[in-house]
Parts: sequence; structure tokens; C-alpha cells
Amino acid sequence: MTVAVRPVFFLTDFGPGSHYAGVLHGVVAARAAGVPTRDLCHSVTPGRVREAGYLLEASLPYLPPDAVLAAVVDPGVGSGRGILAAARGDALLLAPDNGLLTGLLLDGRLSRVRLVDPRRLGIEPASRTFHGRDIFAPAAAMLAAGLPLDSVGPPAPAPLRLDGWLPRCGDREIAGEVVHVDAFGNLISNIGESLLKGRGDISVRVGAAGLSGLRGFYGEAESGEALLYIGSSGHLEAGVRDGSASRTLSVRVGDPFVVLWR
Amino acid sequence: MTVAVRPVFFLTDFGPGSHYAGVLHGVVAARAAGVPTRDLCHSVTPGRVREAGYLLEASLPYLPPDAVLAAVVDPGVGSGRGILAAARGDALLLAPDNGLLTGLLLDGRLSRVRLVDPRRLGIEPASRTFHGRDIFAPAAAMLAAGLPLDSVGPPAPAPLRLDGWLPRCGDREIAGEVVHVDAFGNLISNIGESLLKGRGDISVRVGAAGLSGLRGFYGEAESGEALLYIGSSGHLEAGVRDGSASRTLSVRVGDPFVVLWR
Amino acid sequence: MTVAVRPVFFLTDFGPGSHYAGVLHGVVAARAAGVPTRDLCHSVTPGRVREAGYLLEASLPYLPPDAVLAAVVDPGVGSGRGILAAARGDALLLAPDNGLLTGLLLDGRLSRVRLVDPRRLGIEPASRTFHGRDIFAPAAAMLAAGLPLDSVGPPAPAPLRLDGWLPRCGDREIAGEVVHVDAFGNLISNIGESLLKGRGDISVRVGAAGLSGLRGFYGEAESGEALLYIGSSGHLEAGVRDGSASRTLSVRVGDPFVVLWR
Repeated sequence: MTVAVRPVFFLTDFGPGSHYAGVLHGVVAARAAGVPTRDLCHSVTPGRVREAGYLLEASLPYLPPDAVLAAVVDPGVGSGRGILAAARGDALLLAPDNGLLTGLLLDGRLSRVRLVDPRRLGIEPASRTFHGRDIFAPAAAMLAAGLPLDSVGPPAPAPLRLDGWLPRCGDREIAGEVVHVDAFGNLISNIGESLLKGRGDISVRVGAAGLSGLRGFYGEAESGEALLYIGSSGHLEAGVRDGSASRTLSVRVGDPFVVLWR
Repeated sequence: MTVAVRPVFFLTDFGPGSHYAGVLHGVVAARAAGVPTRDLCHSVTPGRVREAGYLLEASLPYLPPDAVLAAVVDPGVGSGRGILAAARGDALLLAPDNGLLTGLLLDGRLSRVRLVDPRRLGIEPASRTFHGRDIFAPAAAMLAAGLPLDSVGPPAPAPLRLDGWLPRCGDREIAGEVVHVDAFGNLISNIGESLLKGRGDISVRVGAAGLSGLRGFYGEAESGEALLYIGSSGHLEAGVRDGSASRTLSVRVGDPFVVLWR
Repeated sequence: MTVAVRPVFFLTDFGPGSHYAGVLHGVVAARAAGVPTRDLCHSVTPGRVREAGYLLEASLPYLPPDAVLAAVVDPGVGSGRGILAAARGDALLLAPDNGLLTGLLLDGRLSRVRLVDPRRLGIEPASRTFHGRDIFAPAAAMLAAGLPLDSVGPPAPAPLRLDGWLPRCGDREIAGEVVHVDAFGNLISNIGESLLKGRGDISVRVGAAGLSGLRGFYGEAESGEALLYIGSSGHLEAGVRDGSASRTLSVRVGDPFVVLWR
């Protein structure tokens, strides 16, 4: 009889190609040889919890419905912060209790939020700087191999929600921020398409630039021209055709991204 | 009964460790759980179709003969460009119809070249900026799970071939270009070994440098010295022992690489 | 009947997302379709054998006990240097005979050290610059599929051990070096925790900085402050909270890392 296992995906700021990322696969393979493990993302800007939250929310709809997703962007590792396990539909998530799951908590579809208790799982005492290897990966392996979510530890009474996750919507503007810069240098904002409905012509202030007019795709701009468009996650983005908006406009993760209209 | 599945490999310019790359694995895993997926390359210079073509041709002989290879370097995403599916021997390839497959088309061993019709495959309407996730990955999953190539869509009447793919061979020189710079800073040209047969002593102009004499491997040069050699794909390369030819010679992808002889 | 296969892990300086790394997976998949392959690390500083040795030793305890680990950091590729295969417990290692395994040789737990003979394995003549693809990956596939270690070639009479692998311990200082800089900019030394036992208060000279006092984890420092701590591999490290010690202190792999006490 074959027991169904869940595939495991990792989302971290460990850096692409780093041995920290490789060891996560090793730990799961050592504990549960038949569990498939895959890299979701290892290029989160170091310590950027808000960026990790965006990437998790943008990716989750495209993972297998029964996936286990371990998100380890964890600048508070070693301190008293807890580790959360939760369900989103049939998928299971692991993340530090540092606000990374704020977006999913706000939209109310996270269920059975638990605090991971390493001792209850029989996990040995951990290092103080690498809980990804010592707690997240073992817990992910156990969940993938069939451990019920509710066995990881007690309900989490008050998972942390970060302020300022969503943009502030006013009468004349929406004040958001750049939550991710991709490898093309595109600037992804935390401003979802639905917030722009019925606004008419918009313009955007990001870095020193003022941009206006929404395009459909890169090819609608001239080579080297900056453009606004709705990106593949449904968020408003700024890019430069055949170039890098991040470099051209000198903008980084966390910088303001403001929508204006008349 | 076990149905044979094909392994899927991805070649993109999405950036190493990016969630765009991770989501490709997620989509295939969601549609076809038993299909193995692997990263071939995600470090193509953004939008560089010629570089992607080189990397595909250099890698293909070393992939499993039944592989599905999805190559997504696609600056024209969202425009009217089509998506090609084709066979090379037993392997199946997916690529934008933007010239990426020019080299394989020129050498005449690509067969059954088709235009992917997403509706025929039952693929939902796609985003306008991420066909890798919305079309290439679903089509790769279906092909890997057994869909016959000819079912993806109609024959492609005239797949795009880019001019200037091969070097120009004259009486006194071969005018090529740098098609890839690897992580060591080695400069890989589009000049194959066979073009140098019977030429005697060659020299190369690349960047501001003039190099001469072909070596067998890095250890035949002094530390810090620039050298010419036939690389692992059978192309002429320039490197610097214990250093980066790209940095030392200030050369990038697309720069001229010219062979001269007496 | 299912024959047990070993999982294969790769540790290289090929660069994250590079096709050189992807092709390793391809070669193993082509030769042994059922063998799982995973990336351990591809971000070793080019040609840095000492760094590769550290990463291998730091990772090995967390891989499956039956893993095959192919370590390809190989600046001498194409020269006469041999290729080693060896056992560490149940795990099997492949590495160039360039000193990469010095640490494991010094601690005396490497057994059955062999020189890989490609002809004995039926491996075709290799390129002179990419033995990872042409020898290491085929040999890894064969070992993973069940080839006994002793079949790869004759015993290695004198595997190379590099001088200066361990720090020099004096009466008033321990003179070590930075063996790895991670994606956070943390500086990992070759000075193990056990060398600090009973030393009382220590200070460290690294780059232009003098640091003192050992902390438990990042959160015990102020944001932007440099700190010393025992890292997840049991080595002394220097970091900057919410920043990069490598950038702040202008330190790179190979720089001195000296512990002092009174």
C-alpha cells in the first residue's frame, strides 16, 4: 500500500544556490525519503518579511493543493518568537510568527493556526541561528509524511499581524510600497488591481519618477521606456521595457509606490 | 500499471532562486504529481534569446532522451508571438516563436514543429506577462504525462529564424559574438571548433584584448593570464585563469568575438 | 522488486541557476531515471577549494545517511589531478584530488578512498574543462544505482591534504581565516567552538574591525551592530544585525580571522 505524501516547497532568504537551502532538502530526504522537495524561492531580500509574504501569496495558488510550504524568512531566529503551522484549504504552511502570514490572516482564509512545539514533535534542541534546518524542515517532513496538523502543538492564540501590510487608500491617492523587485528589475507594488477599479486615468510616483497610463504588456512600450501594468499576481507594477526599472528609477524593496488620480 | 512519464526541465531568464522559477515546478506538480521537474538554467541574461538558444543547444545532448524542455526567454510575452512545440529526436521542446530555436531549425533536425493552441489544451485564459506559468508549464505537464505532440495545436507554418545566429566566415576572419558569460566570467563564442580546422595559428579580438594560441585547459595558463580554449560545448572560449575574463576584458553577452589568422 | 537507490547531491562553484548545474541533473537522470537528484550548493566562490570543504563538512551531517555527494570545485580540471571517491559512514563522496576533502581526511573518518578510473567505469573520453558533466555525474549516477564503491578504481595511495586547513593555535591567539561568506554577509571562520573552551572573554580581529563578546543570536545585538556568535555549524562567526558584515567590514573569503584573549 502506498501512503500519499505531500510535496514540500521552500521559500527563504537564504540566497540562490546556498547550502542553507540545499540542507533543507537534505533534512527532509533524510527523514522522509519519498517526499518530493522543491525550491519555491530563495531570493527574498535578507530579512524582508513583507516581501516574503507577497511571494507566498503570489505563489500559493499555483502550488499543488496538498503542498506543504515552509517559509523561512526569520530575522528573529533564536529569540522567543514562535513558529506557526496553519492550513490554507488543503495546503499546510509553516512560518515564523513574525507577521509573514499577515496577508493570509487578514483575508480570513487561514485555519487551524498552531504554534509548533519542537519537543512534542521529538525534535532535538535546535541551534540558535538556523531553525530552518533544525525545526522547519523536520516539521515539514513530518507533515508531508502524514502527521496531522493539530499534532504539531497548541492553537496559536494571537498570531502576529504587521501594520501597514495593505496600502492606505485616500480620496486622491493610494499610498502603497514596493514589495518585491524581480530579476528583470520590475517593481511590484502591494496595490491590487481591484483598488484601481473606476478610478479613471491613474499616475504613479515611484522613486523620482512620475508614470502614467496603464499598458497591457511590455511590448506596448518603446525599448527603454518605463511603463505601468497589472502584473501576473494581479498587482500594479512598474517596469522598463528591455531594461530594469529598479536601476533606471533607483528604487528598492520597501520604497513608496503611490497612485494618484484626478 | 505504471504509465511512463517524461522528466521536465526548465530554461529561463527568471533569475536563480526566483519564485517565477519555483512556480513552474508548482504548476507541473499540481497537474501531474508523478512528473519529475528539474531546473536546467535560470540565469539567462534577461531577454537574451540568442543566449538561451546557445544554452539549450549546449545542454540538450546531456538531458534524458525523452525529456521535455520548456525554454521561456520571452521578452515578447503578451504580444501576438506564438508558442512552438517540437521534437528533437525523442525529446520535446517548448519555446516562444521568437527565434530561440533558430540553431536547431538551421541544422534541420527539429521535427513536427507545432503552434501551441492553449484553448485546444483546455488552458484557461493567461495573464499577459507570465506565459511560463500560464501556458508553458501546463503544456509541459501534459506532454510529460503522455499527451502526443501533435495534439498541442496546428503545424507551425514558418517558425521565426533570427539573422546573425551563426558567425560570418570570411577569407581572413570569422566574425562571431559572445553568446554566454558563465559564472567564472568565461566568454563563450558562437564559433564552433569545426570552423577552426586547418586555419593554423589563430588570434582573437574580444573587447580591447588580442589573444593568441589555443590551450587545452586552464592550468596551461599562468594565474591571471587570459587564454583561448575549446570549451565543453565545442565552442571557442576566452577565459582568465583564476580570474574573470568578463571583468578583466570588460566584455558582455552580445559583444563581438572575432577570429583572425595569417 | 524495487532496488534501493541513493539520492545524489551536488556541491559546486558553477553558479546558482547555471546550466552547468542543470546538466549534472540531466546526466544523472539520463543514466538512472529513478535516482533523486538535488542541489546542495552552487554558490561556492569560483575555485575556492577551502570554502567547498567547509560547506561539505557543514552540510554532510544533515544529508540522508546513504547520500552520494559530488563536490565539483575543480580549478585544476583537465590537468593530471585525480578524482577521489570515498565513504564517510554509509555516505559516498566524489571530489577532485585537490585537497577539498582535507578536513575529512584529517579527522580520520573517511574510509575506502579510491581513485576514479573513468575507463573502468566505461565512461567515454571527457572534455578537458567539464569533468563535472563528463565524469563526476556519470560516476555519481552509477554509485547511486548500486555500483560498489570499490569498483570505481584502485585505492588512492596519497590523497592531497592542503596545508593551513585548521587554524594555528598559539598562547595568546588563534589565527584562522574566513572560509565562507553567506548570503546575509555573515563571516564564517574555520575556528570551531571547542577551541574557545576555557578561554574566557575573547575578542576578534577581522578586516579593520575589533569585535568582542560572544552573543547567542542576532537579536541580542542592536540593528546595524556587529556581533560574534557560534554559528549553525559550530564555528565562530561575525555578523551584523540587519546588515552585511562582509560589506560593513570589507571582508571576503580567505581573509584572516584572529581570536585574541587576555
